[in-house]
Amino acid sequence: MAYPPSPFAPADFPALPPVPGVRLAACEAGVRYSGRLDLMLAEFAPDTVVGGVMTKSTTAGAPVDWNRIALGNGAARALVVNAGNANVFTGERGRDAVEKTAAAVSGAIDCGLNDVFVCSTGTIGEYLLEERITAKIGDLTATLSDTAWENAATAIMTTDTYPKGAVRTTAIDGTPVTLVGIAKGSGMIAPDMATMLAYVMTDAVLSPGVAQAAVADGADKSFNAITIDSDTSTSDTLLLFATGQAGHAPVSEVGDERLTDFKDALNDLLIDMAHQVVKDGEGAQKFIEIRVAGAESDDAARRIGLAVGNSPLVKTAIAGEDANWGRIVMAVGKAGEKADRDKLAIAIGGVQITQDGEPVPNYDETPVTTHMQGHDIEIEIDVGVGKGQATTWTCDLTHGYIDINADYRT
Amino acid sequence: MAYPPSPFAPADFPALPPVPGVRLAACEAGVRYSGRLDLMLAEFAPDTVVGGVMTKSTTAGAPVDWNRIALGNGAARALVVNAGNANVFTGERGRDAVEKTAAAVSGAIDCGLNDVFVCSTGTIGEYLLEERITAKIGDLTATLSDTAWENAATAIMTTDTYPKGAVRTTAIDGTPVTLVGIAKGSGMIAPDMATMLAYVMTDAVLSPGVAQAAVADGADKSFNAITIDSDTSTSDTLLLFATGQAGHAPVSEVGDERLTDFKDALNDLLIDMAHQVVKDGEGAQKFIEIRVAGAESDDAARRIGLAVGNSPLVKTAIAGEDANWGRIVMAVGKAGEKADRDKLAIAIGGVQITQDGEPVPNYDETPVTTHMQGHDIEIEIDVGVGKGQATTWTCDLTHGYIDINADYRT
Repeated sequence: MAYPPSPFAPADFPALPPVPGVRLAACEAGVRYSGRLDLMLAEFAPDTVVGGVMTKSTTAGAPVDWNRIALGNGAARALVVNAGNANVFTGERGRDAVEKTAAAVSGAIDCGLNDVFVCSTGTIGEYLLEERITAKIGDLTATLSDTAWENAATAIMTTDTYPKGAVRTTAIDGTPVTLVGIAKGSGMIAPDMATMLAYVMTDAVLSPGVAQAAVADGADKSFNAITIDSDTSTSDTLLLFATGQAGHAPVSEVGDERLTDFKDALNDLLIDMAHQVVKDGEGAQKFIEIRVAGAESDDAARRIGLAVGNSPLVKTAIAGEDANWGRIVMAVGKAGEKADRDKLAIAIGGVQITQDGEPVPNYDETPVTTHMQGHDIEIEIDVGVGKGQATTWTCDLTHGYIDINADYRT
Repeated sequence: MAYPPSPFAPADFPALPPVPGVRLAACEAGVRYSGRLDLMLAEFAPDTVVGGVMTKSTTAGAPVDWNRIALGNGAARALVVNAGNANVFTGERGRDAVEKTAAAVSGAIDCGLNDVFVCSTGTIGEYLLEERITAKIGDLTATLSDTAWENAATAIMTTDTYPKGAVRTTAIDGTPVTLVGIAKGSGMIAPDMATMLAYVMTDAVLSPGVAQAAVADGADKSFNAITIDSDTSTSDTLLLFATGQAGHAPVSEVGDERLTDFKDALNDLLIDMAHQVVKDGEGAQKFIEIRVAGAESDDAARRIGLAVGNSPLVKTAIAGEDANWGRIVMAVGKAGEKADRDKLAIAIGGVQITQDGEPVPNYDETPVTTHMQGHDIEIEIDVGVGKGQATTWTCDLTHGYIDINADYRT
């Protein structure tokens, strides 16, 4: 496989601070890969609460089923994640594998079975050798530390080319609160060798209902607003763990105004992580922001944005550094949402290219060409029927994507 | 552009017989291309009726608007088609261009303006130089012949690598009837440089209502059951012209039993043409048939089939000759239709690979590997919830697609 590296790869993994109540460890379990970290464990202090959002796939994997039930309790003491095998479409054996993994962790840290969250990412339809995981739980619990973020973020990677993490600090009721997130892509809303997993750990003191509402809310404008290849993973999972160690008075009402800054910080962190996932999209060379306005509703705007972001023809044009806005017109037209063709306005890189359903006469192509040669592409679309708006993000579709996905198992 | 040629290219254009009441001509008009045929005209005998199905795009081009109105009359005397410029997103000037083209044809063959059907395929958002078309109408009418099928099919090509045509003969009421079709792809249900156009000419004696019902019906199981890249063209058009020259007693009731064989022949012809379009899909090296059964309804089965057929991960796996059925599981899961994960059964090339939601133990991989190396790929999926079924067709996603679409305008 010889495709260009991501132009967005950071020089270093960001410096992430400890989150009181969270300890982590990672190791080589050899689930599928050898010679690399592929298993991580996070241990949470007693009274940690959890909220989460998971894939809507009807063929979701055994770990997703498990976590859905565990989320019902709203309590978490551990998260265990392996890379290399997604434990999807593995029937009864797959369910057993999750339960045995959870049991090993609950035994090691002395917590309830349903306080253990289990995620897997990698190939679909191969039986997970859970004994390779359970054999390592002792080692992991013995090496837990409050700073092992980079190792943890590395252990959950599949086709990702670099580990992803981010931090935000905020305050609740005047008390400082930290949020740290780690995530992996990168065939995204996708594949058997990708899947999006993201975890946020915070020391905020929240009720489970507040944690759930905050993460569901934030997901809509971050992880649910990105697409790499339109494929929906069987394992997509976003979890927010709140350890309650920050010391402020507990927040247990969704509408509590003390949460305003926290929610902003969480949303900002989620968008940051979602962008990192897109930027490391399989084969991606361009990061594309699509701002849709003038739609019938915000939801309609999001669907139009995703239609543009999922269009292979738009994505290949951008890969070719071609401001082929005709394909944007086409993608708006196929979205199935109300749009006024004769008012449609499109700008690329801030230059208005169409207005009132026609090309702008003699617009200056030079800045547009320069913009297309960069790595960050901005598209603005006004569909001319209402006040709905939404921003979505995607990447280009390149030879690298074909290389990665046509050659992966062979 | 250096991508492998289509393995499905026929050695020769099929021998297509005259259809009484139809004469054709093609020429080089230089609309965009030079040195190749890019304009065709078909003239139909008086009393020819027409039915049609067009793109659902909300940003459809001026020719589609024109034809929608013309279809209201149900009568046709001419069809003029250019390649190289789609006349889409061209505002008032685009509407003028269609009207001037229709006027030139109606003047030349002495018919009503609304008896002229006008189609354009090619780039979006560039003004059509209709004077290059109108200047050629005289030449075209002077050279009309009843056998110019290959030239006509060639003149409407864009990124197609070969012209597409097919013939069926049948009988209505004991009288022989001929159906001839020509079509072009090939970024399909797609792009600015592709668009699907298909025309069927027959000498059957039909009312406009019967022609409309027959073509709408047939489209559902042919052109609406194929996908190349999930993008919806602004110009997709399928028209059925019936010249009424066959001599049988007119058919004017949709349910008339004398039409049974004709409908079968029409549907078969449409499927043949739809397959030709997919086989010449941009960069296509594999033709993929997806048979879905066990769905809640036939419509649900079709949507599941299209979700599989549109999945970039399924299409790249097949490009890589990899029987990566895990990606099929993923694509079924994302379709949004009811499916029982624990009953899901998948067969590739006739070999059962999964059953009851798990891989079949020790299935024979050898015939599957051999099947994947061929050009015709068969996938059967039973989602285990009902009796709905549908067959859809697609092609693989290859480096050729990226080459064609990332480099086209530049």
